[in-house]
Amino acid sequence: MSDHHFLVVNGPNLNLLGEREPAIYGAVTLDEIESACRAWGEEHGVPVCCFQSNAEGALLDFLQAERHRASGAVLNAAAYTHTSVALHDGVRALPFPVIEVHLSNVAAREPFRAVSLIAPVARGTITGMGALGYILALEALRTMTADAPEERP
Amino acid sequence: MSDHHFLVVNGPNLNLLGEREPAIYGAVTLDEIESACRAWGEEHGVPVCCFQSNAEGALLDFLQAERHRASGAVLNAAAYTHTSVALHDGVRALPFPVIEVHLSNVAAREPFRAVSLIAPVARGTITGMGALGYILALEALRTMTADAPEERP
Amino acid sequence: MSDHHFLVVNGPNLNLLGEREPAIYGAVTLDEIESACRAWGEEHGVPVCCFQSNAEGALLDFLQAERHRASGAVLNAAAYTHTSVALHDGVRALPFPVIEVHLSNVAAREPFRAVSLIAPVARGTITGMGALGYILALEALRTMTADAPEERP
Amino acid sequence: MSDHHFLVVNGPNLNLLGEREPAIYGAVTLDEIESACRAWGEEHGVPVCCFQSNAEGALLDFLQAERHRASGAVLNAAAYTHTSVALHDGVRALPFPVIEVHLSNVAAREPFRAVSLIAPVARGTITGMGALGYILALEALRTMTADAPEERP
Amino acid sequence: MSDHHFLVVNGPNLNLLGEREPAIYGAVTLDEIESACRAWGEEHGVPVCCFQSNAEGALLDFLQAERHRASGAVLNAAAYTHTSVALHDGVRALPFPVIEVHLSNVAAREPFRAVSLIAPVARGTITGMGALGYILALEALRTMTADAPEERP
Amino acid sequence: MSDHHFLVVNGPNLNLLGEREPAIYGAVTLDEIESACRAWGEEHGVPVCCFQSNAEGALLDFLQAERHRASGAVLNAAAYTHTSVALHDGVRALPFPVIEVHLSNVAAREPFRAVSLIAPVARGTITGMGALGYILALEALRTMTADAPEERP
Amino acid sequence: MSDHHFLVVNGPNLNLLGEREPAIYGAVTLDEIESACRAWGEEHGVPVCCFQSNAEGALLDFLQAERHRASGAVLNAAAYTHTSVALHDGVRALPFPVIEVHLSNVAAREPFRAVSLIAPVARGTITGMGALGYILALEALRTMTADAPEERP
Amino acid sequence: MSDHHFLVVNGPNLNLLGEREPAIYGAVTLDEIESACRAWGEEHGVPVCCFQSNAEGALLDFLQAERHRASGAVLNAAAYTHTSVALHDGVRALPFPVIEVHLSNVAAREPFRAVSLIAPVARGTITGMGALGYILALEALRTMTADAPEERP
Amino acid sequence: MSDHHFLVVNGPNLNLLGEREPAIYGAVTLDEIESACRAWGEEHGVPVCCFQSNAEGALLDFLQAERHRASGAVLNAAAYTHTSVALHDGVRALPFPVIEVHLSNVAAREPFRAVSLIAPVARGTITGMGALGYILALEALRTMTADAPEERP
Amino acid sequence: MSDHHFLVVNGPNLNLLGEREPAIYGAVTLDEIESACRAWGEEHGVPVCCFQSNAEGALLDFLQAERHRASGAVLNAAAYTHTSVALHDGVRALPFPVIEVHLSNVAAREPFRAVSLIAPVARGTITGMGALGYILALEALRTMTADAPEERP
Amino acid sequence: MSDHHFLVVNGPNLNLLGEREPAIYGAVTLDEIESACRAWGEEHGVPVCCFQSNAEGALLDFLQAERHRASGAVLNAAAYTHTSVALHDGVRALPFPVIEVHLSNVAAREPFRAVSLIAPVARGTITGMGALGYILALEALRTMTADAPEERP
Amino acid sequence: MSDHHFLVVNGPNLNLLGEREPAIYGAVTLDEIESACRAWGEEHGVPVCCFQSNAEGALLDFLQAERHRASGAVLNAAAYTHTSVALHDGVRALPFPVIEVHLSNVAAREPFRAVSLIAPVARGTITGMGALGYILALEALRTMTADAPEERP
Repeated sequence: MSDHHFLVVNGPNLNLLGEREPAIYGAVTLDEIESACRAWGEEHGVPVCCFQSNAEGALLDFLQAERHRASGAVLNAAAYTHTSVALHDGVRALPFPVIEVHLSNVAAREPFRAVSLIAPVARGTITGMGALGYILALEALRTMTADAPEERP
Repeated sequence: MSDHHFLVVNGPNLNLLGEREPAIYGAVTLDEIESACRAWGEEHGVPVCCFQSNAEGALLDFLQAERHRASGAVLNAAAYTHTSVALHDGVRALPFPVIEVHLSNVAAREPFRAVSLIAPVARGTITGMGALGYILALEALRTMTADAPEERP
Repeated sequence: MSDHHFLVVNGPNLNLLGEREPAIYGAVTLDEIESACRAWGEEHGVPVCCFQSNAEGALLDFLQAERHRASGAVLNAAAYTHTSVALHDGVRALPFPVIEVHLSNVAAREPFRAVSLIAPVARGTITGMGALGYILALEALRTMTADAPEERP
Repeated sequence: MSDHHFLVVNGPNLNLLGEREPAIYGAVTLDEIESACRAWGEEHGVPVCCFQSNAEGALLDFLQAERHRASGAVLNAAAYTHTSVALHDGVRALPFPVIEVHLSNVAAREPFRAVSLIAPVARGTITGMGALGYILALEALRTMTADAPEERP
Repeated sequence: MSDHHFLVVNGPNLNLLGEREPAIYGAVTLDEIESACRAWGEEHGVPVCCFQSNAEGALLDFLQAERHRASGAVLNAAAYTHTSVALHDGVRALPFPVIEVHLSNVAAREPFRAVSLIAPVARGTITGMGALGYILALEALRTMTADAPEERP
Repeated sequence: MSDHHFLVVNGPNLNLLGEREPAIYGAVTLDEIESACRAWGEEHGVPVCCFQSNAEGALLDFLQAERHRASGAVLNAAAYTHTSVALHDGVRALPFPVIEVHLSNVAAREPFRAVSLIAPVARGTITGMGALGYILALEALRTMTADAPEERP
Repeated sequence: MSDHHFLVVNGPNLNLLGEREPAIYGAVTLDEIESACRAWGEEHGVPVCCFQSNAEGALLDFLQAERHRASGAVLNAAAYTHTSVALHDGVRALPFPVIEVHLSNVAAREPFRAVSLIAPVARGTITGMGALGYILALEALRTMTADAPEERP
Repeated sequence: MSDHHFLVVNGPNLNLLGEREPAIYGAVTLDEIESACRAWGEEHGVPVCCFQSNAEGALLDFLQAERHRASGAVLNAAAYTHTSVALHDGVRALPFPVIEVHLSNVAAREPFRAVSLIAPVARGTITGMGALGYILALEALRTMTADAPEERP
Repeated sequence: MSDHHFLVVNGPNLNLLGEREPAIYGAVTLDEIESACRAWGEEHGVPVCCFQSNAEGALLDFLQAERHRASGAVLNAAAYTHTSVALHDGVRALPFPVIEVHLSNVAAREPFRAVSLIAPVARGTITGMGALGYILALEALRTMTADAPEERP
Repeated sequence: MSDHHFLVVNGPNLNLLGEREPAIYGAVTLDEIESACRAWGEEHGVPVCCFQSNAEGALLDFLQAERHRASGAVLNAAAYTHTSVALHDGVRALPFPVIEVHLSNVAAREPFRAVSLIAPVARGTITGMGALGYILALEALRTMTADAPEERP
Repeated sequence: MSDHHFLVVNGPNLNLLGEREPAIYGAVTLDEIESACRAWGEEHGVPVCCFQSNAEGALLDFLQAERHRASGAVLNAAAYTHTSVALHDGVRALPFPVIEVHLSNVAAREPFRAVSLIAPVARGTITGMGALGYILALEALRTMTADAPEERP
Repeated sequence: MSDHHFLVVNGPNLNLLGEREPAIYGAVTLDEIESACRAWGEEHGVPVCCFQSNAEGALLDFLQAERHRASGAVLNAAAYTHTSVALHDGVRALPFPVIEVHLSNVAAREPFRAVSLIAPVARGTITGMGALGYILALEALRTMTADAPEERP
């Protein structure tokens, strides 16, 4: 794994953060979140590569392309969290740990957001912490991959 | 809102209208529907911009790109009506009214078409009227945006 | 069909419109809606006959009595929409098209309003447009019955 | 029980028999069914009293009014079969046997017709026999009340 | 509210109280319950107006007619409790408090009696107390309307 | 159909009638029911052939063997009513009408008896009439096959 | 029953009344409710014994210990209402009547509060009346135990 | 149909075959499967055209583009099998037979893989045969289109 | 495994093939299917042994008796597919591969045919191919058992 | 009851014990279990009669034939436990106690094994004890029938 | 395991045995059951330690405290059987076999008693045998731990 | 809030960490987790107060007692997560943020662990991170309470 870096992958509508329903998602923009993640990466010596798309297939293409290069991923699949068996299968096929992140506390929202197809194949989940959740997830990835690039169990 | 116009957005397989199951969808083609909508627009002095795609992400990209320009949208999300939380979230984030339209009477079809993820975030729904439904929806948008660009409640 | 006219039929509690939960149903009264419908009829040369009742049986009696006289009906069955198999059967037995109308966007309300027993036997549905929905439905009936009194499929 | 007679009670839309969906309900009219029932009554020396209404409350009023006079009832509650707890309670309160009848084979139709609220409080059920079902039900009532006016168990 | 009085409204089959299934409903008659309520009214200086009907529409008509006159209502909707969205909407539209009452303990009976469509729009519910429940409900109405005619929350 | 006769087919445990739970099934024995059916046959000039088995396969073998010989069947599939897709398919393949009969009122018993796999493919159903139900069913078969051997629709 | 008294038993979190979500539970404290109950007891000559615990087992221990001493109980099991089969069984084993009380109208709250495991084994239920509900329940207990200590049916 | 050829269409993550969970999907790669299919085509004189995409919209675009050219298709929609109403509608609109194929025995896997939205609109399904399933499906297509290009029933 | 041969086992009502609902099952008879299978066997040097029964127990007896003799089985359990836990357990206990076959596309039929109890314990499934499905299944068995008698995983 | 003896009845696939999935069912054979049961019988002076069949009807025939002769039965209905209403009805008709036994702990296995149709009509159930369960069940039968042949409650 | 003994643990309300609903639970008291268990222990040289509590936490504390001392446990968790994930987790963490016992046949009682959270983590279950069930369970524990203290699988 | 500190509260069976199912929960003990939390507290100048109990009531008592003293809480309610409405209500009544933590990835475990009653009233959730999750949660609490003691929304 000569190319040690972490991914921060965001799904549909997250490019509208700050503008879209700030009561739920907060006032922070995606740019600000991605900058904070990259700053964390520079501070800790792990490059952080960010990607956002509204398309399920593009998110999957990106994760597949990185599967032999990255060492971990923070994934906020947004709406696809609740509907995408394709991303479920795609995450399951990744050799590195994936942490699922949600800005809001999805458990306190509509029933159709209660089921996550990503959660069972992620290493763990962080919800309801806003932008801070991304940083905590990067922190967790760093610990998980500290000694040895662990296999997913 | 210097750029007052309405959108007519059609989802997957609607490009095959006229050819696909005419017993259900009628003999009219998408071209004819879009022409009728544009003609209506010319008659009423509101440009009508039409878009069709088979891709969930492309539909969402289009709606997002128009979110500060258009004044209203007629949306027939077709199959994505029943499965797309991404479009649900996308419509919810739009500042202008969206009218959901279906050519056939979806309530009289398969059970998996009984649930619409678009309906709860649309201003209203028109179903079972064939191509006429699009014109009625444009009519409704014109009334809704007549005096003042209303906020979505 | 020597007696060409359209029906506008309203179900329980709609006589309280304007007074009852204006946040949901708007400030317009039933009188105003019925007047607008009759005005539309005069303008287009099709008499419009209005009826409201709180009683399921009376609504059904009215529709049955008109079954060989009227050419179309706009039906807002209100609460009976969700519970009345009797109206379902009654609408199914009518030889002319019926358009289901709801003032509010029922898809955005309580789950028990998600199921309509009228929709599968109506020609189509218009929801969430307030009083305008009635006019659009009359417009649709006029188109549907323009050339020839169509059979329900 | 000085006033020995049987009731034949028909619910909503059955007044349209012969005209309404003859493929399902047959070509016989309600008049013909009631005449056949009365003829049976004359032949067997048991007056048969017929009643039809589209109103749930009127059907219940009728059954209550007869509760100390009639000796048995044939009840085709039609659409109310599937929705009326009021008729369920009303039939349960009757001191004489009630036979539930349906013209068509309801088990072969829509799922919402699969549940009968009348069946659990009736003595028995006859379905799918068309007009003949009423005569068989009267025959059954005659046997049940032959020796002694039986109590419902 | 120049016309301060309370309503006691009873639904289908309750006119048969005392005669119908006394093991469940007790031996007291509707007459006796209504007399007790009126006596309570005289004692406390609040006229009590009683109404019973087997018809859903008639119950709704009555409540609507009283909506600007009465100050509170005790409602035992009997079978309609479990099926009437119309009464649900009707009670919700009333400006005064409504207390739902049931003679028997409905929670200990058939599953289809487990759901009340009245309860969510009533101020509260009293069940299983027999005729006493009506008096306790009147007592509660008196307290609730003592100082000021409260709005329903 | 040179061999005009009716079948009376009884399923598992019905050989124990009279002995098994007489509170539910009555005191009459299977012998007595079969004798009454044969007597009815002699009286009306239609031989009645009776069969009982505890085995699903044997019941199906018997019905198949008779499929080109008999003109109608009365079928009480007992417990297999609720579980046998094989009998469902078998009855559907028969060219003559089948009447489903149950001694008790199955609608008033355990929930797992609420579903009949036979009913949707039978011509009609008679329940809750005890042994009389068999005679009424034979009567119905005679009427149905009187003029012409009808096809199942 | 030499030791005639009533119990007022309150479950988890009710010790925080007045402080916890006053919009739902009101501003009255548990102390005030218990004082009002004891005052009622003094006025009517029936000692009232109050108990609160956050522990399911402790509530059950208390009810068991009183089973041969008290004459009736008012029970607000709060959260345990919806989850405790142990209290269900415990109440069922009590020889005296138990009235279930809830301060708020639980039917208008979250779905998981719709089911009460206490209600089917209580004599009756009073909900949505705030602190007044306790007094009405004591009133009901007094009536029920007035003449003779009734058996639970 | 001057352009007789068959399609082999593979959905999301199938490009990772051989690498992804070989215990479930086997060690064969997509390249090898496609080569085997093309070899079969050469042997039988029917060109075989292969396509894979991770994007639902791209799969649909491809099938639509081929709808007047190809004579049959083998479709392994992978994860979209369980979620894509768009592909369901798209396959239904194709004039040639489609055989659904899955490498693994999906019936023995997670419950969310138990439902196929493709199966009801495919001509048939082959599962659990690994790469062999594709060849068997091509064989079946050849038989189905041998004499005459059959219509889908 | 000195006695290398394949089984072709057919369940209830399949003996009526050709005669029973040809619109669904085709015009081919069971005899013709079994002859085709045996002919395939002769051509490929693997004896094919055919068996049909309407009895669940007899099908199970046959499979058990062959468990140490045969090398593979094609099983069309027909109606028992959806109800037989006994055959599920029986197939699971077989040491050789079993291919489930259905003539029609069961996924396009009644909901109660949507669940197969055989599929999770079969090696794979072929549906909707008519008689051809049996030959494809034999082909698959030949490949699976070519090199070495594989164990079921 | 001149013919005092106990039955040990085993259902489908249990004849394969020892050979079939020993990880679940253990290595003991049916012969060994039956021998142990008969040995227990000799030791305690109660003849033990053993029976196994793969056929639901044969199991039912056997139990019926013994209904006036045996004094108790140990029944492991295996797969029929979860599907046989016929055995449910048959066991209910037996005059002597029946103990349901399962070798494995069915509660820890597939969901479709979670429901037993035998359990509600058995006297009790013993699961997860392997062959020992049969002996414990015989022990229990001996105690239950020690003094007097008890009636089933 | 120098401290070889068995536990007999009883949950809520079982301290009232003999007094509480003897029709269901029998007339025997908990004292008598515990004495019988201890007597069995003396006879077989294995001390039996008994514990009862109404508190879920106390039952769990007791089991945890014994986890390195006892060799087996008989557990009747009573009401907690159906609700306690905590006891499920606690039993799963025990190194010795646990036998679940119920006095009554829970399968014949209310639906909410149909699910046991203890059963899947117990070694086996004995129900419906009254006090005898405890002795049989001890017998089973003795056999299971006879040769070597077995591990739970 | 003169008494600024954080709580770390652990529920049933977590005292067995390290010993209980290390494959799921890891080898770390509760002592080690609590020490790490307290060390984090010392490093950041926020005292951390730890508590564990197997009793639902005790956990609730503890949280209530701290409600005016602590500034935040990390809560791993373990088994009570899925069953305790009492803790749901208790957490909702707390004035400070609560972060729900689980050691394992509960989404990948048994279905009954899929629902959390704590999550909807917590500020957010961290799962699947082992002991690290507690530290991340403390980190999050520190950020949330940094500037001003936030109100729960």
